[in-house]
Amino acid sequence: MPPMLQSQLQGTWVTPDATPDTATGVHDAVTGDLVCHVSSQGLDVVGALDHARHLGGPALRALTFHQRADLLDAVGAAVRARREELYVLSARAGATLLDARYDVDGGIRVLRDYSARARTELPDAPFLVEGPAERLARGDDFLGVHLVSPSPGLMLQVNAFNFPVWAPLEKLAQALLAGMPTVVKSATPTAYLTAQLVRIITDAGVLPPGALQLLVGSARPALDLLREQDVLSFTGSATTAGTLRTHPNLVARSVRFNAEADSVNAMVLAPDVRPGTPLFSAFVREVVTEMTVKAGQKCTAIRRVLVPREQENTVLEAISAELAQVTVGNPATEGVRMGAVVSLAQRDDVRRAVRAIAESGRFVHGDPDKVRVVDADPERGAFLDTLLVSADPDAAAPHEVEPFGPAATVLAYRDTAHATDLIARGRGSLAASVVGDDLVWTTAFVQEAAPWHGRLHLMDSTNMTQTTGHGSPLPALRHGGPGRAGGGSELAGTRGVLDLMQRTALQASPRILGAFR
Amino acid sequence: MPPMLQSQLQGTWVTPDATPDTATGVHDAVTGDLVCHVSSQGLDVVGALDHARHLGGPALRALTFHQRADLLDAVGAAVRARREELYVLSARAGATLLDARYDVDGGIRVLRDYSARARTELPDAPFLVEGPAERLARGDDFLGVHLVSPSPGLMLQVNAFNFPVWAPLEKLAQALLAGMPTVVKSATPTAYLTAQLVRIITDAGVLPPGALQLLVGSARPALDLLREQDVLSFTGSATTAGTLRTHPNLVARSVRFNAEADSVNAMVLAPDVRPGTPLFSAFVREVVTEMTVKAGQKCTAIRRVLVPREQENTVLEAISAELAQVTVGNPATEGVRMGAVVSLAQRDDVRRAVRAIAESGRFVHGDPDKVRVVDADPERGAFLDTLLVSADPDAAAPHEVEPFGPAATVLAYRDTAHATDLIARGRGSLAASVVGDDLVWTTAFVQEAAPWHGRLHLMDSTNMTQTTGHGSPLPALRHGGPGRAGGGSELAGTRGVLDLMQRTALQASPRILGAFR
Repeated sequence: MPPMLQSQLQGTWVTPDATPDTATGVHDAVTGDLVCHVSSQGLDVVGALDHARHLGGPALRALTFHQRADLLDAVGAAVRARREELYVLSARAGATLLDARYDVDGGIRVLRDYSARARTELPDAPFLVEGPAERLARGDDFLGVHLVSPSPGLMLQVNAFNFPVWAPLEKLAQALLAGMPTVVKSATPTAYLTAQLVRIITDAGVLPPGALQLLVGSARPALDLLREQDVLSFTGSATTAGTLRTHPNLVARSVRFNAEADSVNAMVLAPDVRPGTPLFSAFVREVVTEMTVKAGQKCTAIRRVLVPREQENTVLEAISAELAQVTVGNPATEGVRMGAVVSLAQRDDVRRAVRAIAESGRFVHGDPDKVRVVDADPERGAFLDTLLVSADPDAAAPHEVEPFGPAATVLAYRDTAHATDLIARGRGSLAASVVGDDLVWTTAFVQEAAPWHGRLHLMDSTNMTQTTGHGSPLPALRHGGPGRAGGGSELAGTRGVLDLMQRTALQASPRILGAFR
Repeated sequence: MPPMLQSQLQGTWVTPDATPDTATGVHDAVTGDLVCHVSSQGLDVVGALDHARHLGGPALRALTFHQRADLLDAVGAAVRARREELYVLSARAGATLLDARYDVDGGIRVLRDYSARARTELPDAPFLVEGPAERLARGDDFLGVHLVSPSPGLMLQVNAFNFPVWAPLEKLAQALLAGMPTVVKSATPTAYLTAQLVRIITDAGVLPPGALQLLVGSARPALDLLREQDVLSFTGSATTAGTLRTHPNLVARSVRFNAEADSVNAMVLAPDVRPGTPLFSAFVREVVTEMTVKAGQKCTAIRRVLVPREQENTVLEAISAELAQVTVGNPATEGVRMGAVVSLAQRDDVRRAVRAIAESGRFVHGDPDKVRVVDADPERGAFLDTLLVSADPDAAAPHEVEPFGPAATVLAYRDTAHATDLIARGRGSLAASVVGDDLVWTTAFVQEAAPWHGRLHLMDSTNMTQTTGHGSPLPALRHGGPGRAGGGSELAGTRGVLDLMQRTALQASPRILGAFR
């Protein structure tokens, strides 16, 4: 009998009151076997939030930014020491070793980056004074600065299933530095992975009591308990974001809400890029990478490929040829490049989505209902072939429907104005890529596209071998886009930390301001 | 017959379809006479928003920050040239000349401050590149910066009645610099003042077509028309903020929403301040100023006066003695220090609120139902006496109920822990003042109080003659507080401008980034 997944609350692992009948079963993405049951029934959520507020918060707020950076290093070291456990478990969620590294090592890298950044950019004090002091009146004794200090609240993470390690770690890094305890609500389909991550961290005993807790199951009971000084950090669908944003308690208390919602991200091939050039090949590889890494289950993944009409057929052929080389199957098996999506339900969602998009066009590569897999049962596992669609650029579905799997749609643009219009039809995205060497074209396009994006990844012949890739959010850069992407912001260096704190204008005499320096 | 107030839409003044029966009557706060009727019935709101999007937006986005600063100067000069008209009209809303200057000259000062700030702190370009460029990979050709560029949307201002000139101007200053056209929805009780302001600006012809429009009446039709690139900038009650924040169209499109809500702001007398000292007198004067300026109708006004228990009686006596000197009456009359609140309905609200607070205490000065007025009819005008209440600090009402008029409550604290607990019971405020010379006490108190406030005004013996006062938001400093205060942020120097723009991470080669410098 597979176990009822435990939550880590108030310093102990606790089992919910549920029975397998009342809990949600989580299945192996590859074999269909039951992995565990998930439920929050009977968990003491009130006690958990109090624990964070009364123990974790004061302990973290008493530390300086540099001392908090030490915690990040300790967490990173603990996870690194046992990362193999997470790789192995990741295969059950359909992830190849490369996928698992993206998730696990990526999370460790964010911790490391943020600890270094905090030591360089933030003071060895619990708060930050943003200056220089500005004279607010005629004399010299009435000055203004901003004090950025820790909020006496907690961060509730409500995470998506696709990054069960990276997402909790990147949010934890920023929250710890902000002096804020964290309660992680893991996404059900990969809750066992986040639970293992939290087990590794708590086993190591490197964080103050109450600094990190794990709530498995439903977030709902916690939402009513959030307060003015808390932050709800959400990653997931736009629909759920809307439900959370309008939650009466959150609205009544102006609880800070940060959303990263899925978006229909684009990659744009500029008119100057000729087939057969290295840049053209790099473009094709990038599209295929985005379709296949984590079986396309990335909120930043490329869904729309905008190409000049003259290039459409060449592009479709080139991408299809690359996709034909992709081996799908058991992610633990040598030579498999793409594993399964996370669940059969997810597979069905993707099938529905790509069919809706293909209504105005056709499948160029792959069939949503058929796939050849290596070392696995294609019926019991949540496998999909790579799915390349060609569609009418002026249809609605390609810009609105997001197949959260190994799928992308090629859309041909007539001219630059058409391309800028099409990219905006995503109504706000996390990231877009522009591939081209023409400085004038790219600069003009970026100015039109920028307000619709949280990040623009510009690939040209000089940097195509150095890029970290379209899909990778980096600690230095903003992660979060406007409109459909949720209007949030994370990372962006220390900005992501300060955004979790309270910025208070201070009007005071030099002698009082001196005490804060 | 008083006029039906016109809106300024699509470059012309338009009269709504309403009749006096279907419109809202706005009355003189002093005489009770009808000033005008207000309605948005039959106004072409769709056309107005299109006008802003198609004409105002492109024109403003094409300008550099420095060219936009020229617009601020031109608007400021136009308003300054005709400010007497606004002073005279302000008296009809109950404002003394000092109150009117606070509103009108304060608005002009924000324009002047922001134009100077833009020229010093922002580039002579339409966008800002935030650097320095960071290396994102091993080579030197893949760098990251943030590009802050104008959103192709508009700002809808939904304003409160109490600053009919300052509020539209301070928001306009930030929106113009951000390259964003503005539609002002004026608050009904003082709509005629904002209309006159917009008339002065449009008469001057200094703004590009579509950069500024005025919508008189209801904001509701406009809310359904807002889009992903727009900003709704709201000032008013927490209840209305909640309604706007959960508006289905705003939620579905992640429309940026900034709220400044009323809060129950505090002033704290530190334990070290002795009666009879100049600092004690400055503290008393500040309380009285906050109670009387604009008849206490400021969202930053002091509602809670926290004093050491030992000083309670002395403080009550000293404030009462000052209040006894305040002449209430026709604000246009020489020697009158405090005019009327904006309407009879507002007067009734204040009466209800102070009575709720006095339930756990008593009125020390003033009677909510009686007032001696100079040169006016106390029944027809919306007059109130200054109302000083002494209440139980541990009761709920003093921390929750906000009498939006000339009222304050003195609450005695037992010790420092009690004081920090009490100030947090406001659940988030725009501003608080701390008065004292004890460096250790003040520093410790500030660290506890800061997360609950958008601004802390620290008055000591060295700066008490220089302070710009507890109640004044300044362009250099953040205006907006957490929790009950709405969780918003305005002003704070150029931050207020950049917050209206889109910050996009740019990953690119040095040659492409060079084109943006």
